[in-house]
Amino acid sequence: MSTINLETYRHSLSHILALALRRIYGREVKFATGPATAEGFFYDISLPKAVSEKSLLKIQQEMEKIVKEKLSFQKKLMPWKEAVEFFKTEEQNFKLEILEEIALLEAEKSGEEITKTKQNLTVTTYQLGDFEDLCRGPHLENTGEIQRESFLLTKTAGAYFQNDEKNEMLTRIYGIAFPNKKELKKYLFQREEAKKRDHRKLGKELDLFHFSDLVGPGLPLFTPKGTAIKEELQKRVEKICRNYGFQKVSTPHLAKIELYEISGHKQKFGDELFHVKSHHKQNYVLKPVQCPHQTQIYASNPRSYRDLPIRYMESEKQYRDEKPGEISGLGRVIAITVEDGHSFCRVDQVKEEIIGMIKIIKDFYSALGMWENHWVSLSVRDPKHPEKYIGEPKDWDKCEAMLQEISDEMQLEAKRQEGEAALYGPKLDFMFRDALGKEIQIPTVQVDFATAKRFDLFYTDEKGQKVPPVMVHRAILGSYERFMALLIEHFAGSFPFWLAPVQIKVISVGEKHIPFCEKLQQEFLGEDFRSQVDKSNETVGKKIHGASSQKIPYVLVIGDREVESDIFSVRSHENGTTELLSKKDFFEKIRKERE
Amino acid sequence: MSTINLETYRHSLSHILALALRRIYGREVKFATGPATAEGFFYDISLPKAVSEKSLLKIQQEMEKIVKEKLSFQKKLMPWKEAVEFFKTEEQNFKLEILEEIALLEAEKSGEEITKTKQNLTVTTYQLGDFEDLCRGPHLENTGEIQRESFLLTKTAGAYFQNDEKNEMLTRIYGIAFPNKKELKKYLFQREEAKKRDHRKLGKELDLFHFSDLVGPGLPLFTPKGTAIKEELQKRVEKICRNYGFQKVSTPHLAKIELYEISGHKQKFGDELFHVKSHHKQNYVLKPVQCPHQTQIYASNPRSYRDLPIRYMESEKQYRDEKPGEISGLGRVIAITVEDGHSFCRVDQVKEEIIGMIKIIKDFYSALGMWENHWVSLSVRDPKHPEKYIGEPKDWDKCEAMLQEISDEMQLEAKRQEGEAALYGPKLDFMFRDALGKEIQIPTVQVDFATAKRFDLFYTDEKGQKVPPVMVHRAILGSYERFMALLIEHFAGSFPFWLAPVQIKVISVGEKHIPFCEKLQQEFLGEDFRSQVDKSNETVGKKIHGASSQKIPYVLVIGDREVESDIFSVRSHENGTTELLSKKDFFEKIRKERE
Repeated sequence: MSTINLETYRHSLSHILALALRRIYGREVKFATGPATAEGFFYDISLPKAVSEKSLLKIQQEMEKIVKEKLSFQKKLMPWKEAVEFFKTEEQNFKLEILEEIALLEAEKSGEEITKTKQNLTVTTYQLGDFEDLCRGPHLENTGEIQRESFLLTKTAGAYFQNDEKNEMLTRIYGIAFPNKKELKKYLFQREEAKKRDHRKLGKELDLFHFSDLVGPGLPLFTPKGTAIKEELQKRVEKICRNYGFQKVSTPHLAKIELYEISGHKQKFGDELFHVKSHHKQNYVLKPVQCPHQTQIYASNPRSYRDLPIRYMESEKQYRDEKPGEISGLGRVIAITVEDGHSFCRVDQVKEEIIGMIKIIKDFYSALGMWENHWVSLSVRDPKHPEKYIGEPKDWDKCEAMLQEISDEMQLEAKRQEGEAALYGPKLDFMFRDALGKEIQIPTVQVDFATAKRFDLFYTDEKGQKVPPVMVHRAILGSYERFMALLIEHFAGSFPFWLAPVQIKVISVGEKHIPFCEKLQQEFLGEDFRSQVDKSNETVGKKIHGASSQKIPYVLVIGDREVESDIFSVRSHENGTTELLSKKDFFEKIRKERE
Repeated sequence: MSTINLETYRHSLSHILALALRRIYGREVKFATGPATAEGFFYDISLPKAVSEKSLLKIQQEMEKIVKEKLSFQKKLMPWKEAVEFFKTEEQNFKLEILEEIALLEAEKSGEEITKTKQNLTVTTYQLGDFEDLCRGPHLENTGEIQRESFLLTKTAGAYFQNDEKNEMLTRIYGIAFPNKKELKKYLFQREEAKKRDHRKLGKELDLFHFSDLVGPGLPLFTPKGTAIKEELQKRVEKICRNYGFQKVSTPHLAKIELYEISGHKQKFGDELFHVKSHHKQNYVLKPVQCPHQTQIYASNPRSYRDLPIRYMESEKQYRDEKPGEISGLGRVIAITVEDGHSFCRVDQVKEEIIGMIKIIKDFYSALGMWENHWVSLSVRDPKHPEKYIGEPKDWDKCEAMLQEISDEMQLEAKRQEGEAALYGPKLDFMFRDALGKEIQIPTVQVDFATAKRFDLFYTDEKGQKVPPVMVHRAILGSYERFMALLIEHFAGSFPFWLAPVQIKVISVGEKHIPFCEKLQQEFLGEDFRSQVDKSNETVGKKIHGASSQKIPYVLVIGDREVESDIFSVRSHENGTTELLSKKDFFEKIRKERE
């Protein structure tokens, strides 16, 4: 089974499905098409009655029987006219329509008269037990090759014949199939997990963000809890970047269209740009990226070779006019808060700049426990089309070699990907895997020879000459929206302590314990810990359950004993245990955990 | 002189100016009009030659002579026709035009024939020495009442006759005048100071912000140094607000126009709104205020009486389509970063909410040393027009009484200002004075009965009834742009240590001391102090001068001795002294100073 072709495997299962249907429903069932899919197979059929869940089970059982029967798939060559006669006798009108289509396509291709094609054309059918289907194949040898419990019928849905809404509506029966039982189980588990972890679902349950009809789709409103996560991420990434010499700047969301004509973004983004009209004869664009604004800060002062590198970073919203159909949760939004940074440097500084940026990426993703599971792409020019890129070939050569050197020195083992470079320079992209194994590509380091020249930026070198700086772009976490979506799903809402929007829930046993709880909350606030007091008159059990469903890392229940002794029983959400800790020890513990 | 009418005083000076001109230039000088201004007076004249600075001095001396002559102002009543004859003889054509105008206006007012008016009309003139001017008065009794050195001719400028650009261009001679020498001197000093402190000038010199032609006017780009100030202010105000229960939220800059139709801002802002077109049949507005977005976060979940108060704060940019002519520095911009906050609360919580907000204002302005010099306005309804306001009169009565109560309890001594309330509720405004004594009004606390109702916001009370919350709006520092402009001018760029964009300048004596300086910089960074290393090969003297002109609070010069001993000579910008401090003591000092 190691050399199995999964598509053939899955497609064979759709024939098995068809035979099962034929056995159960006889000639009543009319077959359309039954291909393999990315995770299994389906068959579109017409049947006078609906296919209930119970029927699905019956069909599944019949399929399993067919597998056990080890029936062989028998290929037949059949003249077109004979095939028509056969499917007429079988009363399979969809197959007749498909035969007409095949003849028409064939005639178009060969330029023959259609009647002549119909005379000469041969088609293939596959026989499986009582059921003979028009099909190109290939299939397995026999049904015995299907592994036990490796497939499952999952659902039915409506579908138009040939996916054309002018045609009849059919019933599509979906199945999933994997090479063996273990892989099917793994897939089912992951699908269940992904559903539970869906950031749109968790975002609502944990009250992290919200969409309002009055504001508009794709324009998330971050609640206090969502904002706390965003700010915590921002603090973390900015602190690391500051250690590597980045300085924060702040620029507006509007600029004249001229700015983007020069940068080239007007052409690049086209209809994705939002245009803003002023009443005072000035038209603006909402910024789709940060770089052009940052070039204007560089340009605000004369720069000498001694001033470089100059490194700016910024976390601001950008706006892109996305298609309404493509907007979804935080994954694709109109208002995107991007953490963006650039280094303006001399050619002899590029290497050190890139190394610094890679260290930032490593620091940040290590803190999230994601660094261990990464790979790097070194995206270079397409050697066959050097004319597609901006800049001097010798700069490109030097820079590509340098990225390779960095990859070697830092043991990144970057995979060289030809033709994947940006228009203006080569780049390194970093790929991670989330908790479900899904690959995510976010951090990037890109060398850019072009932008500084487009904006006439320069510095004065040792000889007093004007020289354009190199720009190195870097993204660490990309957009906060997409990154939050990813982290919500990665952690399934159980954020690590430092990132949790509410870190500690303080539960009062009775009304009289509330002042003590509130005093405690003030102490947490004094050290910038995020806590909530549950003052409701619910039972303690319900309050604990509430905190647990909100996935709050620590819960303290405060009753008489706690007020008197300053010793708390601390419930941990992560491992479900309870620990007795003095106030001092608990503070010590959470201080450490935050680092 | 205590009962002097300053306008009369200044206007009398314009007659003295006219007489001086007449004495010097004879009939060549033609007089237009000469009113008092907010700081002095001017006279518009026509003269064949330009008025040089030297001539201004000569005119000033002649005016002083006239003052010493103690000439009296003699009022005369003169029939209109006689006045025309007189000014014809005097060849004062502007006065003739003014006489025509007076007649025309009078005829319009009375409904008489113009010829009849000219027959019957009487005008007044004032004679001063040789010079008789058409004027309504009043004036001083005689020129001796003008105090020694209380006035000064300052400049000339071009001005159209009657300020109408279709008319002839005249020369306007400006003077400033105050009741006495002392007050004039004070004014001149403050004007000089204000010029030195102008935030546009200092913003450039200290490299705090920049405007780019490619981005557009009114769209400031904050450099790393300007951003540091903004972030420091933000950190400070958010920390204080967090202590009083405010939670940060984050909302986008776009919303559907419907949001502002409901809030009433569409009508209120009209042409100041920026409209944004989408390619996907959805039109947006750039937010001109934050409140409507925040109502939508409140609306995102059901709220119970136990959940209130809910307090949101946000520091985001807003956009207003200001007239190009009104845009200036950071004082009036298109992109305004507003620190805005709201409390949604029950009626019985309003008082406590307001008290909390006033405490925030007090904490924040005390930290800036501005609290001592403030006064408060309690803005209530115009009792003559109760119909102008939204909401129940009984709510208004209760709320106005409550604000008075708060003012009494907190000893604010608020001045009651009738008719100054907002449309939707009464408010408290706080007025401060900057270092030059200029009054500034920023913080405000406003009670709002209307907005929650407009958006159908509610909470469920003890009885299960739906009740709209009261919204209390509060501004602490208003917009960061305007506040920074104000602070730059208030501190003349010499920011207190906690706010200084660069807090410590480390100067290396020679090339070999640079590594030590850089290590020191990393240590400062480790504790979030902002420092810079001057590695240039300038002389130490020049480097110190550079740091001083950048108004950096502390300068450390690092040479052999410092590297060996870890004892630094610390130059303080504030008091110009130098102090020997060990590294440990210096850190101790700056930690304390930051608090």
